[in-house]
Amino acid sequence: MLVVQKFGGTSVGDIARVKNVSKKIKQELDLGNKVVVVVSAMSGVTNQLVDYCSQVSSLTTPEALCEYDSVTATGEQITCGLVALELQSQGYKARSFLGWQIPVKTDNVHSKARIEEIDGSILLKSLEDYDVIVVAGFQGINDSSNRVTTLGRGGSDTSAVAIAAAIKADICDIYTDVDGVYTTDPRITEKARKLQKVSYEEMLEMAYSGSKVLQTRSVAMAMAHNVRVRVLSTFTDTTPNSGTTLVNNDEEIMERRLITGISYSKNDVRITITKVPDRPGLSSSIFGALAQAEVNVDMIVQNISADGFTDVTFTTSKEELERAKLAIDSVKEQAQYHSVLIDENIAKISVIGVGMISHSGVAHTMFKTLAEKGINILLISTSEIKISVLIAKEYGELAVRVLHTAYGLDAK
Amino acid sequence: MLVVQKFGGTSVGDIARVKNVSKKIKQELDLGNKVVVVVSAMSGVTNQLVDYCSQVSSLTTPEALCEYDSVTATGEQITCGLVALELQSQGYKARSFLGWQIPVKTDNVHSKARIEEIDGSILLKSLEDYDVIVVAGFQGINDSSNRVTTLGRGGSDTSAVAIAAAIKADICDIYTDVDGVYTTDPRITEKARKLQKVSYEEMLEMAYSGSKVLQTRSVAMAMAHNVRVRVLSTFTDTTPNSGTTLVNNDEEIMERRLITGISYSKNDVRITITKVPDRPGLSSSIFGALAQAEVNVDMIVQNISADGFTDVTFTTSKEELERAKLAIDSVKEQAQYHSVLIDENIAKISVIGVGMISHSGVAHTMFKTLAEKGINILLISTSEIKISVLIAKEYGELAVRVLHTAYGLDAK
Repeated sequence: MLVVQKFGGTSVGDIARVKNVSKKIKQELDLGNKVVVVVSAMSGVTNQLVDYCSQVSSLTTPEALCEYDSVTATGEQITCGLVALELQSQGYKARSFLGWQIPVKTDNVHSKARIEEIDGSILLKSLEDYDVIVVAGFQGINDSSNRVTTLGRGGSDTSAVAIAAAIKADICDIYTDVDGVYTTDPRITEKARKLQKVSYEEMLEMAYSGSKVLQTRSVAMAMAHNVRVRVLSTFTDTTPNSGTTLVNNDEEIMERRLITGISYSKNDVRITITKVPDRPGLSSSIFGALAQAEVNVDMIVQNISADGFTDVTFTTSKEELERAKLAIDSVKEQAQYHSVLIDENIAKISVIGVGMISHSGVAHTMFKTLAEKGINILLISTSEIKISVLIAKEYGELAVRVLHTAYGLDAK
Repeated sequence: MLVVQKFGGTSVGDIARVKNVSKKIKQELDLGNKVVVVVSAMSGVTNQLVDYCSQVSSLTTPEALCEYDSVTATGEQITCGLVALELQSQGYKARSFLGWQIPVKTDNVHSKARIEEIDGSILLKSLEDYDVIVVAGFQGINDSSNRVTTLGRGGSDTSAVAIAAAIKADICDIYTDVDGVYTTDPRITEKARKLQKVSYEEMLEMAYSGSKVLQTRSVAMAMAHNVRVRVLSTFTDTTPNSGTTLVNNDEEIMERRLITGISYSKNDVRITITKVPDRPGLSSSIFGALAQAEVNVDMIVQNISADGFTDVTFTTSKEELERAKLAIDSVKEQAQYHSVLIDENIAKISVIGVGMISHSGVAHTMFKTLAEKGINILLISTSEIKISVLIAKEYGELAVRVLHTAYGLDAK
């Protein structure tokens, strides 16, 4: 078997944990498998490096983000060398690979670059000479100017999946500090249950709606390249039942369930632009400016026009709020709006499940359950397998708990 | 003018000092000069990284040293990005270069690689687009397998001089925490004087004999490529009289002086191999094994044969002692020696000066001065412009002070 194992920042948080990780790798090697390991930076290191950068730069220009990438990529460079050294000390032939050595080619969008191409041939050739290869996650190289890029926070998940796709690995095991994907955050309700399997589509919606187990882009990449991904814990023994496996809807029998999980995010901000003249193209000029500023817009609602004016409301993440404000300001004259209202005191609750495609009444259960607790819904958005509602932040955890019970997700 | 400025670890020791360094760079830029900056890691960072590596590896194999290099090179990667960011914030067009991006091609001797080739064309071309370029010192890339190499401790000096040679810079300013090269270590005697000029040859001998101002190899490289090097302080204002400039003996009028400086090293260890049969080839087998183990041997004395046996004594650095012991052990059968004696309780004192070529009596002054203080000489070695003696460590500082006075070096 050809196995990719990815270890996150807490899994390699100090030297003792680097040694622990090497035991997980040893287990795979002792089964006769060839292994490619992908590592994050030691937990805290990337934050320290980002803090250094912020002390000398506002990090707003492309040139600044180039340097930011070169600085922050060092965290993974350190851990992949240390893990390779520990494996060598255990008697294995091991070596590290940095993003530029593979190379992991990305686009030019520094600090959140997208992987464009990984030629797996150098890694595969190297696996003929080495038992195990340790790759620095999170980093790549842009194709145009040979400079170091990074994939955005949590990017090592994407590195692992992309490498698994490039070398056609049999499985990509993502080791983290939780033992799998849960029906909801176990810190909110003890009744949360670990899922044995979850479909790519569901995982994608969960990641996008606030579940932090996997980076959204890594799930999209796994789906696109049909990479078998398993999420499991670094800190417990691995058994055949460990973790949660990502599967296709069609190829594997799903547990019969209506709703797979409930995601919860406190990281959204609601922006309302008031009294936009209701003429064709005016709200498109606003969203055009937001797109140009690379602001990801999530939920969007445009009210019915009154007296020729309309209110446009949307949500984005708190990190993008400043950029969003600047973008909206830049089109004030063009869009002729009245004012901009910002509300950070909100939470987004999403119920997710491929089961809802064939079952009606999922939305009704949601609205009814929230109404019974007197929780007001501020915004609604839906996809084929997800319903998200925006509510006041203070009700967030209550809403998760009552919905978890209402959809029959509670552990027995 | 095309200027190379190199800043050591204490000069970039924290973010405040990174900002201070950018002022030194700004001064050059404001004169209309093009500047290439070479930086070390923040002080303490490399030690931390080496410590991490030592906790997971004995670092004895070439594969391990490969990883060691990749890990320890991150220190410079961080500082060069931060200095570039700070310069951008000051309004300059600045960018960083890592060793592999230039590339700085080295041999394959990981952890103490030698620079083989730097093609200056990418840097020079980049200077057309940027006001200032910041290069990560200490690191390169091996030509055979595209892996990161490092040049050994203090290697950033060598990086700076090599880059100055490659781009034919007008001057290479080495900024450090002292304001130049002194007649001897000012911590040993307050009477030490700063030298305005020192010849390459003298600086080479001083560096080799224990002066830590410049890495030995950087001086050799400056001499070979005729790079004008100046040593000066990061922490004081720069004036035309600042620092110490390295010059050729022939091209610039030297101050009339017999002795230029006195170096002092406590880092040597004396190894005596007793009762080696005095037959051709036996001591050569010992030094052959040492050379193969890459042990640098400094002073060597072979006693006159008695009864067909001889004692072989040499010195090396404390860092190389373990390797040296292993190498000597490995030829015990071949060399048929009796035993190995190790003495770490020694100091090496060297008097250096091109003036001694044309003056006799330098050695006599040394021996007489030491004898008057009752200091016994254990070993002597000489070169054209240097006399080194090995003495008991306890007399080291006293010897430096009395010799400094005896050779007329004391400040008025």
